[in-house]
Amino acid sequence: MSKDKKIVVIGGGTGSFAVLSGLKKYPVDLSAVVSMTDSGGSNRVIRDELGLLPTSDIRQCFVALAENGKEQSLRKLFIYRFSKGNGLNGMTFGNLFLAALSDISGSQIEAIKKTSQILKIKGKILPVTLTDSNLVAVYENGKKIVGEHLIDEPKHSGKLKIKKVYLKPKAKIYPQTKKAILNADLVVISPGDLYTSIIAALLTEGIVKTLKKTKAKVAYVMNLMTRYGQTYGFTAGDHIRILENYLDKNCLDYVLVNVKPLSRSALAKYKKVKEFPVVDDLKDDYFKVIRKDFLSKKETKRVPGDILKRSLIRHDSNKLARVLFKLCQIK
Amino acid sequence: MSKDKKIVVIGGGTGSFAVLSGLKKYPVDLSAVVSMTDSGGSNRVIRDELGLLPTSDIRQCFVALAENGKEQSLRKLFIYRFSKGNGLNGMTFGNLFLAALSDISGSQIEAIKKTSQILKIKGKILPVTLTDSNLVAVYENGKKIVGEHLIDEPKHSGKLKIKKVYLKPKAKIYPQTKKAILNADLVVISPGDLYTSIIAALLTEGIVKTLKKTKAKVAYVMNLMTRYGQTYGFTAGDHIRILENYLDKNCLDYVLVNVKPLSRSALAKYKKVKEFPVVDDLKDDYFKVIRKDFLSKKETKRVPGDILKRSLIRHDSNKLARVLFKLCQIK
Repeated sequence: MSKDKKIVVIGGGTGSFAVLSGLKKYPVDLSAVVSMTDSGGSNRVIRDELGLLPTSDIRQCFVALAENGKEQSLRKLFIYRFSKGNGLNGMTFGNLFLAALSDISGSQIEAIKKTSQILKIKGKILPVTLTDSNLVAVYENGKKIVGEHLIDEPKHSGKLKIKKVYLKPKAKIYPQTKKAILNADLVVISPGDLYTSIIAALLTEGIVKTLKKTKAKVAYVMNLMTRYGQTYGFTAGDHIRILENYLDKNCLDYVLVNVKPLSRSALAKYKKVKEFPVVDDLKDDYFKVIRKDFLSKKETKRVPGDILKRSLIRHDSNKLARVLFKLCQIK
Repeated sequence: MSKDKKIVVIGGGTGSFAVLSGLKKYPVDLSAVVSMTDSGGSNRVIRDELGLLPTSDIRQCFVALAENGKEQSLRKLFIYRFSKGNGLNGMTFGNLFLAALSDISGSQIEAIKKTSQILKIKGKILPVTLTDSNLVAVYENGKKIVGEHLIDEPKHSGKLKIKKVYLKPKAKIYPQTKKAILNADLVVISPGDLYTSIIAALLTEGIVKTLKKTKAKVAYVMNLMTRYGQTYGFTAGDHIRILENYLDKNCLDYVLVNVKPLSRSALAKYKKVKEFPVVDDLKDDYFKVIRKDFLSKKETKRVPGDILKRSLIRHDSNKLARVLFKLCQIK
């Protein structure tokens, strides 16, 4: 048996992508635990028309963990989005791939396993749950919105605070996910949309209990920027306080915070969409704050259909991985 | 350089599939030259909405030539047809695969090459032309129909004879196809729909001239059954006479004719759709008639989306390949 340290990365989207694509270069036993409440775009078709669980976040994990060699063409295919065709426009090829394979192999779990082989990914991809469930947000004014993509891009003012979120129906933890967390040496809570990616996953019944039970250390990677509609005006402390409403208090061991200043030009672009740097007001607490330069130097362009779409300011996957790899060695 | 004999198989659809999947087991250098006028179903979306050349026949060749081992999942994916989803229903995964890869790699030819690598196919797949062209049929009553799928399933009586077919606009032979035919030891004209698969390919400008120029022997595999709407009431001799209108006279070296009687139960099913066995009225001519049992014992069921859909009575790929392999050795 491999003696590699076991790391579980919880999340979905660009944040998970950064953490996973860094860690895959290290000799670790990786599991990507993926949020399953995505409901926009391609996922709407996948869920409503094909009757499957959403796969966009899973698809991104596949791309993050895929071999960089021979399977490059398949990797590119996976992120490809059709931009023509009446019924195809906007659909992501990776989602279609997983949908077709689910039908052929009889289940989405089987399709994920087969795709892992085809793409020769490093590690495992585990849905946080197999329950078909939706995220519901209740706002401070009593307003209620059902569906991750509608919460993600609300039509009301994005300054309106979310009072609480829950899953409807309740979702149960996927047994393999539970097992992976129990056996882990380190659990990483990815950066990403606080409510629609991170808490959406943590709401799954059994996750918090399992995080309490595991001997793994838990590291949370603090977001770089606030998100209009979810975390407008949030400091780092606000992020932790909200997390604590859903996670058991004292559950975090480390919080990774970037200290490298953000570029003015990038900040100006984010300001236009009312998004700002997360102010670091943290003190060491029951967790240890690890302050370092975690910033990517690349200010990537918006590529249509690419996962880096929103990622002008983003974490550097190598810088994160270096620290996370060290953390997983600590006993 | 390989000293394997070079075989070029011209056609598309189930007939080519049978020839190719048999020959791929032999030590030969295989090229599948594929008809490019398909216009129905998935191809309509591919052509009209995505602005690409049709790929259904190419897809079938990929499946025929794909490795039977590891790539089995991808092979199954390639023939998968979506049966749900507003915009997806009826679309074949293989066509979407080729469409996405065409966009990524910049051309369909490049996509075909990459897919050949991914599926590790034996041999090469060559479109007969890269011209976006449609098949036009003129009937004996003067009626004209444009588009292969409309000719394939005409709304008029299927007994009405086709007077002539042509391509609009004219299509030019793909240079690699020309090269493959010129260098071949044997050219096989597949069984298949006489007008919409075989002659549709032969109409390409440069094909007939190249067939005349090549030193390769040419073998034509006679259809087992007539096709309502195309070859109603045709004998084997009628097939040859029609072919001769498009192919240069004296072009054929061998004609392979099945002698094994067809099963009564299968014949009864075909009779219902007004399709009958092709009566063998051939005599040795400028070509040699090779009469053998070429019949498949499997009377396959109709599988939705499967390439064997119309193939209750079909050629046995191994029996064909055994004879064709011998023919390619003759100097």
